[in-house]
Amino acid sequence: MDTHPNLRINPHRFRQDFLALAAIGATPAGGVDRPTFSPAHLQARAWFARQVKEAGLELRVDGAGNHSAFLGCAGPGAPVLLLGSHLDSVPNGGRFDGALGVLAALEALRVVKEAGLSLKCSLEAIDFTDEEGTLFGLLGSRLLVGALEPHHLAHPRGGRAAFETGLQRAGLSEAGLLSARRDPAGLAGYLELHIEQSSRLQQAGASIGVVTVIVGIGSYRLTFIGQADHAGTTPLAERRDAGLGAAAFTLAARQLVLDSFPGCVVNVGSQRFHPGSFNIVPGRVELDLEFRAADLDTLHGLEAALLELAAAESARWELGLEALRLGLHPPAEMSPLARQAVFQAAAGLELAAVPLSSGAGHDAQSLAPLCPAGMFFIPSTGGSHSPRELAFWDDCLNGANLLLQAALRLAS
Amino acid sequence: MDTHPNLRINPHRFRQDFLALAAIGATPAGGVDRPTFSPAHLQARAWFARQVKEAGLELRVDGAGNHSAFLGCAGPGAPVLLLGSHLDSVPNGGRFDGALGVLAALEALRVVKEAGLSLKCSLEAIDFTDEEGTLFGLLGSRLLVGALEPHHLAHPRGGRAAFETGLQRAGLSEAGLLSARRDPAGLAGYLELHIEQSSRLQQAGASIGVVTVIVGIGSYRLTFIGQADHAGTTPLAERRDAGLGAAAFTLAARQLVLDSFPGCVVNVGSQRFHPGSFNIVPGRVELDLEFRAADLDTLHGLEAALLELAAAESARWELGLEALRLGLHPPAEMSPLARQAVFQAAAGLELAAVPLSSGAGHDAQSLAPLCPAGMFFIPSTGGSHSPRELAFWDDCLNGANLLLQAALRLAS
Repeated sequence: MDTHPNLRINPHRFRQDFLALAAIGATPAGGVDRPTFSPAHLQARAWFARQVKEAGLELRVDGAGNHSAFLGCAGPGAPVLLLGSHLDSVPNGGRFDGALGVLAALEALRVVKEAGLSLKCSLEAIDFTDEEGTLFGLLGSRLLVGALEPHHLAHPRGGRAAFETGLQRAGLSEAGLLSARRDPAGLAGYLELHIEQSSRLQQAGASIGVVTVIVGIGSYRLTFIGQADHAGTTPLAERRDAGLGAAAFTLAARQLVLDSFPGCVVNVGSQRFHPGSFNIVPGRVELDLEFRAADLDTLHGLEAALLELAAAESARWELGLEALRLGLHPPAEMSPLARQAVFQAAAGLELAAVPLSSGAGHDAQSLAPLCPAGMFFIPSTGGSHSPRELAFWDDCLNGANLLLQAALRLAS
Repeated sequence: MDTHPNLRINPHRFRQDFLALAAIGATPAGGVDRPTFSPAHLQARAWFARQVKEAGLELRVDGAGNHSAFLGCAGPGAPVLLLGSHLDSVPNGGRFDGALGVLAALEALRVVKEAGLSLKCSLEAIDFTDEEGTLFGLLGSRLLVGALEPHHLAHPRGGRAAFETGLQRAGLSEAGLLSARRDPAGLAGYLELHIEQSSRLQQAGASIGVVTVIVGIGSYRLTFIGQADHAGTTPLAERRDAGLGAAAFTLAARQLVLDSFPGCVVNVGSQRFHPGSFNIVPGRVELDLEFRAADLDTLHGLEAALLELAAAESARWELGLEALRLGLHPPAEMSPLARQAVFQAAAGLELAAVPLSSGAGHDAQSLAPLCPAGMFFIPSTGGSHSPRELAFWDDCLNGANLLLQAALRLAS
């Protein structure tokens, strides 16, 4: 079996792609703002589609809006090895998160096409819809693996209105989403390159982090319900102020995790006050809660503890509480086969690779139950989900070559 | 001097007016939603203007959008006694707040006109623009007394965009606002009927509360500035989470007032999280703060203590802080002359009246520095700035007759 160990991506072309894509939705702070199906995101998708066609690859789009470059480099009916990531960003995000993985996948396909290789799998460079969760979270990849039923779509974490508007803007329909489901027999595996979004690789002095497990993530909308009253005439002691319950929960949730759930994290990403006037005691506060744990038991334990805490704070401040679970993604082990391919390819490229868990969610966790899924990180600094996000270009090139080499190992 | 002690309002017409006005912007919960220059508020204004014309009164509108019914019941050049309140409501507010005072004033003018009385002052039933502060707060009354200069309009507490859009919707211009200023020599005084918005009258078993002082009110926008980071990959201990500073301040501000500022109140009416995603550590939280005190020294002391607290919590959570003062209205003493007229008129109507301070702000506080200003409350229950706000109709009738009788005393 020839794994074509000397094949490399075209660094000039890869760099041009990166700069062109980073200019779409560029923000003054140096990042990009491309929430799912925003004008900038739709523009980035159109740009990607053009590159696919210009490269002579086949453009495929499914009912979930996942779109991809397909290269039939194996016989008809051969399974396909997916390489990819996502083009959407969090609001006011960075240039590397997601974009790098899609571009490296596209470039890998171009190189394999130019080399005229014949492999055991076809290759597909895919951009998954709404990884970041502006609308739903891992939407495209979960639809592709058939993990979503219609009732799952009832409470998108970005709200129903945004969900419907977004689909409409992209020319998608809710009914059509489910048609994105693929037959697992056709999937040879999935590989994803991503920036690390933490500082562990830097601290370890390693070039590559091979992901062992992607942490489980739960998200809830907690609504603290008090009573809207006049903020001048209602004595403090007589108020049922929803903002106090939300504030107390926010502080206590952090302390709970620090004290009792080492290695886990919790985030209160947003609070919305109603009616939201200077001179009205908040009658209702909606709080967006997310929490993460690397194993399923801990995830469930953390979920229960946070709900108990929310109930206790509601009672203490004489408030009502509504808790709506918006998602619970179990932790996902990455495939030993894929991990081995990445480690071996890294050795071939003389890149120091270490095993790492992923605190961030990724499309690879959707694919993991269905096919050998793997992912690896390159070092990044300056924060993540932030315009300050930064990966050194040498590391980006290493990552793209490693994606190509690991894919060739899996597909040969 | 004849004070026409037997003159009464027309209870049927007053009731019809109340029901017609309460239907404009009516909410399912039983209140009204008429924020300044919203479609419902503009509709209420148009309704008022029609009533003025149908009553044969003169409709006057000034550059601030204050509009009024004028009755020239004294000689030309006689000063005018203003009676009034406001037709705007807080978002999702009640039917009585403001509306009752405007309707009683209108009805008083109708009755005086029908009786063909000749008084020492002309009468004017006025609806002041934006009392509640959707855009600015006491906007119309402060412009009428000349308390606002162009630089005051730079930071309206509802934001510049809403301010500009609102003026445009009402056909007003920022330059025109200042033309609403009146010569104090032309003002004989101001009287306002309002619901109490607290339960002190009920507890005292009294029918009328004669306001002694309107508390001072300060409002600030506090911005806690941290760093937006990935909520999965950034360890809790390494975060600079703006939401934690806002939460800690919210709880501590309440405790500060309870411990050290008896009789005062504080409210965190809204918080806005940026970027506001489930999976991003809040990088910035804007917090809307309001506080009230009955005397100026305490108001200043409370302001300083709250700012110190915000700075301390920012430092503790490693955040930046921006504090923007949006308003500081000093406490306003009501005129002894007006108080006496109300007490005497209440005695004439056999209504039990007690002196009270007002924890809520009112247009009367704008007028107080310029002319004898007075206001009085009727009992109300069910909260305030809320659709549950409720005054018994007998009390409303008593209030309207008291406004008429007190006005006749001041104008005779």
